[in-house]
Amino acid sequence: MQLTRFTDLGVRVLMYLSSPRAADAPLATVGEISEQFAVSHHHLVKVANILAQHGWIHAARGKGGGLRLAHAPSDIPFGAVVRLLEGDGDLIDCADPPCALRGGCNVKSVLDVARDAFFAALDRYTLADITAGGTGEKLARIQFHPPARAGSGAPAAAR
Amino acid sequence: MQLTRFTDLGVRVLMYLSSPRAADAPLATVGEISEQFAVSHHHLVKVANILAQHGWIHAARGKGGGLRLAHAPSDIPFGAVVRLLEGDGDLIDCADPPCALRGGCNVKSVLDVARDAFFAALDRYTLADITAGGTGEKLARIQFHPPARAGSGAPAAAR
Repeated sequence: MQLTRFTDLGVRVLMYLSSPRAADAPLATVGEISEQFAVSHHHLVKVANILAQHGWIHAARGKGGGLRLAHAPSDIPFGAVVRLLEGDGDLIDCADPPCALRGGCNVKSVLDVARDAFFAALDRYTLADITAGGTGEKLARIQFHPPARAGSGAPAAAR
Repeated sequence: MQLTRFTDLGVRVLMYLSSPRAADAPLATVGEISEQFAVSHHHLVKVANILAQHGWIHAARGKGGGLRLAHAPSDIPFGAVVRLLEGDGDLIDCADPPCALRGGCNVKSVLDVARDAFFAALDRYTLADITAGGTGEKLARIQFHPPARAGSGAPAAAR
Protein backbone atom coordinates (compact mmCIF):
# COMPACT_ATOMS: atom_id res chain seq x y z
CA MET A 1 0.00 0.00 0.00
CA GLN A 2 1.70 3.10 -1.18
CA LEU A 3 0.78 6.66 -1.99
CA THR A 4 1.84 7.91 -5.39
CA ARG A 5 5.04 9.82 -6.03
CA PHE A 6 2.79 12.68 -7.13
CA THR A 7 1.25 12.89 -3.64
CA ASP A 8 4.67 12.68 -2.03
CA LEU A 9 5.83 15.69 -4.08
CA GLY A 10 2.63 17.63 -3.40
CA VAL A 11 3.01 17.15 0.34
CA ARG A 12 6.61 18.36 0.17
CA VAL A 13 5.55 21.49 -1.75
CA LEU A 14 2.89 22.35 0.84
CA MET A 15 5.26 21.70 3.74
CA TYR A 16 7.96 23.82 2.16
CA LEU A 17 5.55 26.70 1.54
CA SER A 18 4.26 26.54 5.11
CA SER A 19 7.62 27.62 6.49
CA PRO A 20 7.71 31.36 7.31
CA ARG A 21 10.00 33.50 5.15
CA ALA A 22 11.49 36.90 5.93
CA ALA A 23 9.15 39.76 5.00
CA ASP A 24 11.53 40.96 2.27
CA ALA A 25 12.36 37.47 0.94
CA PRO A 26 11.19 36.61 -2.57
CA LEU A 27 8.46 33.99 -3.01
CA ALA A 28 9.56 30.37 -3.09
CA THR A 29 9.89 28.95 -6.59
CA VAL A 30 9.51 25.50 -8.10
CA GLY A 31 13.22 25.63 -8.91
CA GLU A 32 14.11 26.26 -5.27
CA ILE A 33 11.86 23.44 -3.99
CA SER A 34 13.15 21.10 -6.68
CA GLU A 35 16.69 21.82 -5.52
CA GLN A 36 15.99 21.49 -1.79
CA PHE A 37 14.33 18.10 -2.17
CA ALA A 38 16.43 16.91 -5.15
CA VAL A 39 13.31 16.04 -7.14
CA SER A 40 12.23 16.57 -10.74
CA HIS A 41 11.45 20.19 -11.65
CA HIS A 42 9.08 18.97 -14.37
CA HIS A 43 7.02 16.85 -11.95
CA LEU A 44 6.92 19.65 -9.38
CA VAL A 45 5.45 22.02 -11.98
CA LYS A 46 2.59 19.55 -12.55
CA VAL A 47 2.00 19.15 -8.82
CA ALA A 48 2.07 22.92 -8.24
CA ASN A 49 -0.42 23.43 -11.07
CA ILE A 50 -2.89 20.98 -9.50
CA LEU A 51 -2.53 22.57 -6.05
CA ALA A 52 -3.05 26.03 -7.58
CA GLN A 53 -6.05 24.93 -9.69
CA HIS A 54 -7.74 23.62 -6.56
CA GLY A 55 -7.05 26.74 -4.53
CA TRP A 56 -4.53 25.39 -2.04
CA ILE A 57 -1.66 27.57 -3.26
CA HIS A 58 -1.26 30.80 -5.26
CA ALA A 59 1.16 30.75 -8.17
CA ALA A 60 2.32 34.14 -9.48
CA ARG A 61 4.10 34.18 -12.83
CA GLY A 62 6.87 36.44 -14.05
CA LYS A 63 9.64 38.39 -12.35
CA GLY A 64 9.14 38.35 -8.59
CA GLY A 65 6.65 35.54 -9.01
CA GLY A 66 6.56 32.25 -7.19
CA LEU A 67 4.42 30.11 -4.95
CA ARG A 68 2.73 30.69 -1.61
CA LEU A 69 0.03 28.99 0.40
CA ALA A 70 -3.49 30.27 -0.28
CA HIS A 71 -4.54 29.59 3.34
CA ALA A 72 -2.92 29.44 6.75
CA PRO A 73 -1.43 25.97 7.37
CA SER A 74 -3.97 25.45 10.17
CA ASP A 75 -6.75 25.89 7.56
CA ILE A 76 -5.43 23.22 5.19
CA PRO A 77 -6.82 19.77 6.14
CA PHE A 78 -4.21 17.16 5.36
CA GLY A 79 -6.78 14.57 4.19
CA ALA A 80 -8.26 16.97 1.63
CA VAL A 81 -4.95 17.64 -0.06
CA VAL A 82 -3.82 14.00 0.00
CA ARG A 83 -7.22 12.98 -1.46
CA LEU A 84 -6.81 15.55 -4.23
CA LEU A 85 -3.26 14.47 -5.03
CA GLU A 86 -4.09 10.77 -4.98
CA GLY A 87 -7.04 11.13 -7.33
CA ASP A 88 -9.84 8.60 -7.34
CA GLY A 89 -8.20 5.54 -8.86
CA ASP A 90 -9.19 2.16 -7.46
CA LEU A 91 -7.13 0.48 -4.75
CA ILE A 92 -6.92 -2.71 -6.78
CA ASP A 93 -7.01 -3.14 -10.51
CA CYS A 94 -9.93 -5.40 -11.45
CA ALA A 95 -9.26 -4.87 -15.15
CA ASP A 96 -5.68 -6.01 -15.64
CA PRO A 97 -6.03 -8.87 -16.15
CA PRO A 98 -9.84 -8.73 -16.16
CA CYS A 99 -11.01 -10.44 -12.96
CA ALA A 100 -13.61 -13.19 -13.31
CA LEU A 101 -15.63 -11.49 -10.54
CA ARG A 102 -15.54 -8.01 -12.05
CA GLY A 103 -18.78 -6.07 -12.04
CA GLY A 104 -20.32 -8.04 -9.18
CA CYS A 105 -17.76 -8.10 -6.41
CA ASN A 106 -17.92 -6.70 -2.88
CA VAL A 107 -14.18 -6.06 -2.61
CA LYS A 108 -14.26 -2.67 -4.29
CA SER A 109 -17.01 -1.23 -2.08
CA VAL A 110 -15.36 -2.51 1.11
CA LEU A 111 -12.03 -1.01 0.04
CA ASP A 112 -13.81 2.29 -0.68
CA VAL A 113 -15.14 2.34 2.89
CA ALA A 114 -11.62 1.74 4.21
CA ARG A 115 -10.19 4.44 1.98
CA ASP A 116 -12.74 6.91 3.33
CA ALA A 117 -11.62 5.97 6.86
CA PHE A 118 -8.01 6.58 5.80
CA PHE A 119 -8.75 10.10 4.55
CA ALA A 120 -11.02 10.87 7.51
CA ALA A 121 -8.11 10.00 9.81
CA LEU A 122 -5.83 12.35 7.84
CA ASP A 123 -8.46 15.10 8.08
CA ARG A 124 -7.95 15.15 11.84
CA TYR A 125 -4.62 16.85 11.01
CA THR A 126 -3.92 20.12 9.27
CA LEU A 127 -0.78 21.20 7.47
CA ALA A 128 0.10 23.07 10.68
CA ASP A 129 0.18 19.76 12.60
CA ILE A 130 2.30 18.16 9.90
CA THR A 131 4.88 20.93 10.06
CA ALA A 132 4.89 21.37 13.86
CA GLY A 133 7.89 20.86 16.12
CA GLY A 134 11.08 19.41 14.74
CA THR A 135 9.64 19.11 11.23
CA GLY A 136 9.11 22.89 11.10
CA GLU A 137 12.60 23.50 12.42
CA LYS A 138 14.04 21.30 9.69
CA LEU A 139 11.96 23.11 7.07
CA ALA A 140 13.23 26.48 8.31
CA ARG A 141 16.81 25.26 8.09
CA ILE A 142 16.55 24.05 4.51
CA GLN A 143 14.72 27.24 3.48
CA PHE A 144 17.45 29.61 4.48
CA HIS A 145 20.51 27.49 3.97
CA PRO A 146 20.21 25.97 0.51
CA PRO A 147 22.82 23.29 -0.18
CA ALA A 148 25.75 24.14 -2.47
CA ARG A 149 24.90 23.20 -6.04
CA ALA A 150 26.86 20.12 -7.11
CA GLY A 151 29.85 21.18 -9.18
CA SER A 152 29.42 24.87 -8.36
CA GLY A 153 31.97 26.72 -6.32
CA ALA A 154 29.71 29.77 -5.92
CA PRO A 155 28.38 30.48 -2.42
CA ALA A 156 24.63 30.11 -1.99
CA ALA A 157 24.11 33.87 -1.72
CA ALA A 158 25.59 34.40 -5.19
CA ARG A 159 23.03 32.16 -6.92
CA MET B 1 -3.05 4.83 -3.47
CA GLN B 2 -3.03 1.26 -4.49
CA LEU B 3 -2.76 -2.13 -2.85
CA THR B 4 -0.08 -4.43 -4.19
CA ARG B 5 -0.70 -7.05 -6.82
CA PHE B 6 0.30 -9.58 -4.16
CA THR B 7 -2.64 -8.53 -1.97
CA ASP B 8 -4.98 -8.61 -4.93
CA LEU B 9 -3.99 -12.22 -5.63
CA GLY B 10 -4.22 -13.21 -1.97
CA VAL B 11 -7.74 -11.84 -1.72
CA ARG B 12 -8.75 -13.77 -4.82
CA VAL B 13 -7.32 -17.00 -3.37
CA LEU B 14 -9.26 -16.56 -0.14
CA MET B 15 -12.47 -15.67 -1.96
CA TYR B 16 -12.13 -18.65 -4.27
CA LEU B 17 -11.53 -21.02 -1.35
CA SER B 18 -14.54 -19.65 0.53
CA SER B 19 -16.92 -21.01 -2.09
CA PRO B 20 -18.51 -24.33 -1.01
CA ARG B 21 -17.50 -27.37 -3.06
CA ALA B 22 -19.34 -30.67 -3.43
CA ALA B 23 -18.48 -33.15 -0.64
CA ASP B 24 -16.76 -35.49 -3.10
CA ALA B 25 -14.97 -32.73 -5.05
CA PRO B 26 -11.17 -32.62 -4.86
CA LEU B 27 -9.54 -29.70 -3.06
CA ALA B 28 -8.96 -26.54 -5.08
CA THR B 29 -5.45 -26.21 -6.46
CA VAL B 30 -3.21 -23.31 -7.31
CA GLY B 31 -3.42 -24.41 -10.95
CA GLU B 32 -7.21 -24.20 -10.89
CA ILE B 33 -7.23 -20.75 -9.26
CA SER B 34 -4.55 -19.53 -11.64
CA GLU B 35 -6.70 -20.63 -14.56
CA GLN B 36 -9.96 -19.17 -13.24
CA PHE B 37 -8.47 -15.74 -12.65
CA ALA B 38 -5.95 -15.85 -15.52
CA VAL B 39 -3.09 -14.93 -13.20
CA SER B 40 0.47 -16.15 -12.74
CA HIS B 41 0.78 -19.65 -11.23
CA HIS B 42 4.19 -18.72 -9.86
CA HIS B 43 2.90 -15.67 -8.00
CA LEU B 44 -0.09 -17.59 -6.66
CA VAL B 45 2.24 -20.21 -5.15
CA LYS B 46 4.03 -17.45 -3.23
CA VAL B 47 0.74 -15.96 -2.05
CA ALA B 48 -0.63 -19.35 -0.99
CA ASN B 49 2.57 -20.07 0.94
CA ILE B 50 2.26 -16.84 2.94
CA LEU B 51 -1.43 -17.48 3.68
CA ALA B 52 -0.58 -21.04 4.79
CA GLN B 53 2.39 -19.95 6.92
CA HIS B 54 0.17 -17.53 8.79
CA GLY B 55 -2.58 -20.05 9.37
CA TRP B 56 -5.30 -18.65 7.10
CA ILE B 57 -5.33 -21.64 4.73
CA HIS B 58 -4.24 -25.28 4.82
CA ALA B 59 -2.09 -26.52 1.95
CA ALA B 60 -1.88 -30.30 1.50
CA ARG B 61 0.81 -31.61 -0.84
CA GLY B 62 0.78 -34.63 -3.10
CA LYS B 63 -1.96 -36.58 -4.84
CA GLY B 64 -5.37 -35.45 -3.66
CA GLY B 65 -3.72 -32.38 -2.13
CA GLY B 66 -4.72 -28.77 -2.56
CA LEU B 67 -5.84 -25.73 -0.66
CA ARG B 68 -8.67 -25.05 1.75
CA LEU B 69 -9.52 -22.33 4.24
CA ALA B 70 -8.25 -23.00 7.77
CA HIS B 71 -11.25 -21.17 9.29
CA ALA B 72 -14.85 -20.46 8.41
CA PRO B 73 -15.08 -17.33 6.20
CA SER B 74 -16.94 -15.58 9.02
CA ASP B 75 -13.88 -16.11 11.23
CA ILE B 76 -11.43 -14.50 8.81
CA PRO B 77 -11.23 -10.71 9.40
CA PHE B 78 -10.61 -9.01 6.10
CA GLY B 79 -8.33 -6.35 7.60
CA ALA B 80 -6.03 -8.96 9.12
CA VAL B 81 -5.42 -10.75 5.84
CA VAL B 82 -4.98 -7.53 3.84
CA ARG B 83 -2.54 -6.26 6.48
CA LEU B 84 -0.57 -9.51 6.23
CA LEU B 85 -0.50 -9.44 2.43
CA GLU B 86 0.46 -5.76 2.25
CA GLY B 87 3.37 -6.12 4.66
CA ASP B 88 4.61 -3.15 6.65
CA GLY B 89 6.30 -1.01 4.01
CA ASP B 90 5.91 2.74 4.31
CA LEU B 91 3.18 4.63 2.45
CA ILE B 92 5.70 7.05 1.00
CA ASP B 93 9.33 6.48 0.24
CA CYS B 94 11.43 8.98 2.20
CA ALA B 95 14.64 7.37 0.99
CA ASP B 96 14.43 7.55 -2.80
CA PRO B 97 15.60 10.19 -3.33
CA PRO B 98 16.55 10.85 0.31
CA CYS B 99 14.18 13.54 1.59
CA ALA B 100 15.74 16.61 3.23
CA LEU B 101 13.30 16.16 6.14
CA ARG B 102 13.97 12.46 6.69
CA GLY B 103 14.39 11.33 10.26
CA GLY B 104 12.51 14.26 11.76
CA CYS B 105 9.23 14.51 9.87
CA ASN B 106 5.65 14.16 11.09
CA VAL B 107 4.30 12.84 7.79
CA LYS B 108 5.22 9.22 8.44
CA SER B 109 3.54 9.03 11.86
CA VAL B 110 0.36 10.72 10.57
CA LEU B 111 0.20 8.32 7.62
CA ASP B 112 0.66 5.40 10.03
CA VAL B 113 -2.38 6.58 12.01
CA ALA B 114 -4.40 6.75 8.79
CA ARG B 115 -3.23 3.31 7.71
CA ASP B 116 -4.37 1.87 11.04
CA ALA B 117 -7.78 3.47 10.42
CA PHE B 118 -7.85 1.86 6.97
CA PHE B 119 -7.22 -1.62 8.35
CA ALA B 120 -9.57 -1.09 11.28
CA ALA B 121 -12.32 -0.28 8.75
CA LEU B 122 -11.53 -3.47 6.84
CA ASP B 123 -11.67 -5.45 10.09
CA ARG B 124 -15.35 -4.61 10.39
CA TYR B 125 -15.78 -7.11 7.53
CA THR B 126 -15.01 -10.81 7.38
CA LEU B 127 -14.34 -12.96 4.35
CA ALA B 128 -18.00 -14.05 4.65
CA ASP B 129 -19.12 -10.44 4.08
CA ILE B 130 -16.78 -10.08 1.12
CA THR B 131 -18.18 -13.19 -0.57
CA ALA B 132 -21.85 -12.60 0.30
CA GLY B 133 -24.64 -12.13 -2.22
CA GLY B 134 -23.84 -11.79 -5.90
CA THR B 135 -20.11 -12.15 -5.30
CA GLY B 136 -20.65 -15.62 -3.82
CA GLU B 137 -22.92 -16.59 -6.71
CA LYS B 138 -20.25 -15.53 -9.20
CA LEU B 139 -17.63 -17.51 -7.26
CA ALA B 140 -19.83 -20.61 -7.32
CA ARG B 141 -20.29 -20.27 -11.07
CA ILE B 142 -16.59 -20.01 -11.86
CA GLN B 143 -15.80 -22.91 -9.50
CA PHE B 144 -17.92 -25.43 -11.31
CA HIS B 145 -17.77 -24.16 -14.87
CA PRO B 146 -14.11 -23.59 -15.64
CA PRO B 147 -13.53 -21.77 -18.93
CA ALA B 148 -12.17 -23.71 -21.90
CA ARG B 149 -8.39 -23.46 -22.00
CA ALA B 150 -7.26 -21.16 -24.81
CA GLY B 151 -6.14 -23.23 -27.78
CA SER B 152 -7.46 -26.50 -26.30
CA GLY B 153 -10.32 -28.37 -27.90
CA ALA B 154 -10.73 -30.70 -24.94
CA PRO B 155 -13.85 -30.25 -22.79
CA ALA B 156 -13.23 -29.04 -19.25
CA ALA B 157 -14.13 -32.45 -17.76
CA ALA B 158 -11.32 -34.12 -19.68
CA ARG B 159 -8.57 -31.95 -18.20
